[in-house]
Amino acid sequence: MPGKLIVGQSGGCTAAINATLAGVIDQALQRPEVGAVLGMLNGIQGLLDGEVVDLGAESTETRAGLRETPSAALGSCRFKASDEHLERIVDILRRLDIRYFLYIGGNDSADTSARIEAVAQASGYELLVIGLPKTIDNDLPCTDHCPGYGSVARYLAISTIEAGLDTEAMRRFDPVKIIEVMGRDAGWLAGAAALGKHSEEDAPHLIYFPEYHLAADRFLADVQRVYERLGYVVAVVPERITDSAGNVVARSPDPTFVDAFGHAYYDSPAAYLVQEVGARLGLRARFDKPGTFQRMSMALASQTDLDEAYMAGRAGVRHAAEGMSGKMVTLVREPGPAYACSTGLAPLREVANSVKTLPREYVNAALNFVTPAFVEYALPLVGDPLPRYTRLAKYRVPALGWGS
Amino acid sequence: MPGKLIVGQSGGCTAAINATLAGVIDQALQRPEVGAVLGMLNGIQGLLDGEVVDLGAESTETRAGLRETPSAALGSCRFKASDEHLERIVDILRRLDIRYFLYIGGNDSADTSARIEAVAQASGYELLVIGLPKTIDNDLPCTDHCPGYGSVARYLAISTIEAGLDTEAMRRFDPVKIIEVMGRDAGWLAGAAALGKHSEEDAPHLIYFPEYHLAADRFLADVQRVYERLGYVVAVVPERITDSAGNVVARSPDPTFVDAFGHAYYDSPAAYLVQEVGARLGLRARFDKPGTFQRMSMALASQTDLDEAYMAGRAGVRHAAEGMSGKMVTLVREPGPAYACSTGLAPLREVANSVKTLPREYVNAALNFVTPAFVEYALPLVGDPLPRYTRLAKYRVPALGWGS
Repeated sequence: MPGKLIVGQSGGCTAAINATLAGVIDQALQRPEVGAVLGMLNGIQGLLDGEVVDLGAESTETRAGLRETPSAALGSCRFKASDEHLERIVDILRRLDIRYFLYIGGNDSADTSARIEAVAQASGYELLVIGLPKTIDNDLPCTDHCPGYGSVARYLAISTIEAGLDTEAMRRFDPVKIIEVMGRDAGWLAGAAALGKHSEEDAPHLIYFPEYHLAADRFLADVQRVYERLGYVVAVVPERITDSAGNVVARSPDPTFVDAFGHAYYDSPAAYLVQEVGARLGLRARFDKPGTFQRMSMALASQTDLDEAYMAGRAGVRHAAEGMSGKMVTLVREPGPAYACSTGLAPLREVANSVKTLPREYVNAALNFVTPAFVEYALPLVGDPLPRYTRLAKYRVPALGWGS
Repeated sequence: MPGKLIVGQSGGCTAAINATLAGVIDQALQRPEVGAVLGMLNGIQGLLDGEVVDLGAESTETRAGLRETPSAALGSCRFKASDEHLERIVDILRRLDIRYFLYIGGNDSADTSARIEAVAQASGYELLVIGLPKTIDNDLPCTDHCPGYGSVARYLAISTIEAGLDTEAMRRFDPVKIIEVMGRDAGWLAGAAALGKHSEEDAPHLIYFPEYHLAADRFLADVQRVYERLGYVVAVVPERITDSAGNVVARSPDPTFVDAFGHAYYDSPAAYLVQEVGARLGLRARFDKPGTFQRMSMALASQTDLDEAYMAGRAGVRHAAEGMSGKMVTLVREPGPAYACSTGLAPLREVANSVKTLPREYVNAALNFVTPAFVEYALPLVGDPLPRYTRLAKYRVPALGWGS
């Protein structure tokens, strides 16, 4: 008799997480081993409240629409389950007669999934648990990259080039722009802002990474140097970065919020650095903080990312139906000159317990830009070729003795 | 003998201002009355330094590329010309043998253009001056709307719906989002955030306008009410808004910068309101501040806007070649059920001296949302139909006695 499957979405939303959900539903409906496809609303937090829906009853149009809809259609959560919560979750799953448990998320979700599997096993309940990767931060180990990353990378690559053209044109008025991007612990997103750059004039001119300390003095010296060379500067900073004493670069060193997993959230570093540029360099600066826009844009999403996210969802159901458990689906880059990607598997426990930060060889010696090796890694992930904008050739009309 | 034409770009950049420049060049190259097409770099500020280029020498590919390139390809400025500056500008124009002066910009640029015409006339130099409209703020009088507005309106309509899906999915973690949009003096852009909304669940739920005061207390009461109804809230605030005492809503009431025209720039109202929501309502809030991204995105630009911007550039050259002067090209909405737009003319002086704020009938009684009349006005300007995203039907699985 076929077993029931339940799927949930967890952690920060992305443009691609619904593509993974669509992959799960589509594949589940095709597998004879899967008897029903259920969904938990708002992850395990909703499951604890009995918020379960029948995804198999959704229309074909809805399933197709999911592949082009950002956010998390089931709702998401950031919920740290206690041991008691886990017992209750497993009890609920058992009463729902669930055989396959699929959870789409990042490190914390992999940890939760592994713990649910352990509790089920300890009670003799055969539950097959598969994690599906999702994080714009691209910081999961064991996988070449993460569904969700390529889309935000594309967004930041294009938007940074565009915002740079703005600063270039407005250089006589506000010559310094600071772009604050997501990625609290890893510099994959900050680095992606460089992917559309083709010339020295193009933005960005400086990129900083959460893996490396940033003192305001070093930042200001870098900005001053680029300003003297080009007459304008675009710098990219992550939403959290610390100085060498470990204090966050912000107006206040204290967190504005700490979540259930102990992750601390701080005031905007860009807002602070804009003040410093004005006060100490005498240059007018402004900041752009795209916030959740960067992870939700479908117009700027990577088709490669959306396709791989869907593929990961299908692969997860296939593996579960074949009896696999305790694993996360990974993305595997095929060898060879042309980019190609397939799926693999890695132990959930291994994914849960480490973070893949930006390797040192992807950051330049001055710690203020990416290297060509990073661009080679990341560029295929953003999908279609990035736009090339037009600059005038600017054929000068000979001066008539005025000015200069 | 044909006369020379010079064109410049001024004020804040947009996705459409280069389309207007392309219209100017394309039309000028076709007119027998125009002997050369010159460009000033960085507006009149560059002209004063003798920074003049030959636009007629640019390639066909470059001219075509301009129509799809954001920012201001000639460079822009925010420069308040003194009487002495104006005398020097007219002297330079005379020595360059310029007959046609076209300036793309907003109110301040119209004022500058009108003053240049007056100085030329007073010295007996026949200079034909035409203004070309450009402002994302949509606040120029005498014109139905302004090139540049439709593109940012499209960006904000789509991005707000997307960011709303994010908040809806993350409601159990951070239920309040504040989106800070451009538009210091007029609420046309803030209102545009509503154009993609189709249901009560869709963002935005609250919009505030620079034309009307906002006390933090009223804001918090509105947020609390929406939160109680939906469980999450997306509010849109302009980059500057004042309370009933005239103080800006920000952490500090003092400007961070005052430009040459006396325009004051303040700290982020969204950053302040996020703090207040946390401290006084106990709800975790975050803010998105797309900054210059909103005015530079080509993927989210309105094709209608780009086409009209190009049309305005062509019309300006045509009118100048026919001997018209002292006017700005306007956009005229044709009567009838289907949207159609042509060009007209308005006196530069009239454009220079007033600002078209959002009419009262476009704002609801509670001063916290737009009316259907505004949507009827603005929706045609965003071009192609806005995306409709998918929500799951969420067929509930009967509870098994757990939870609640």
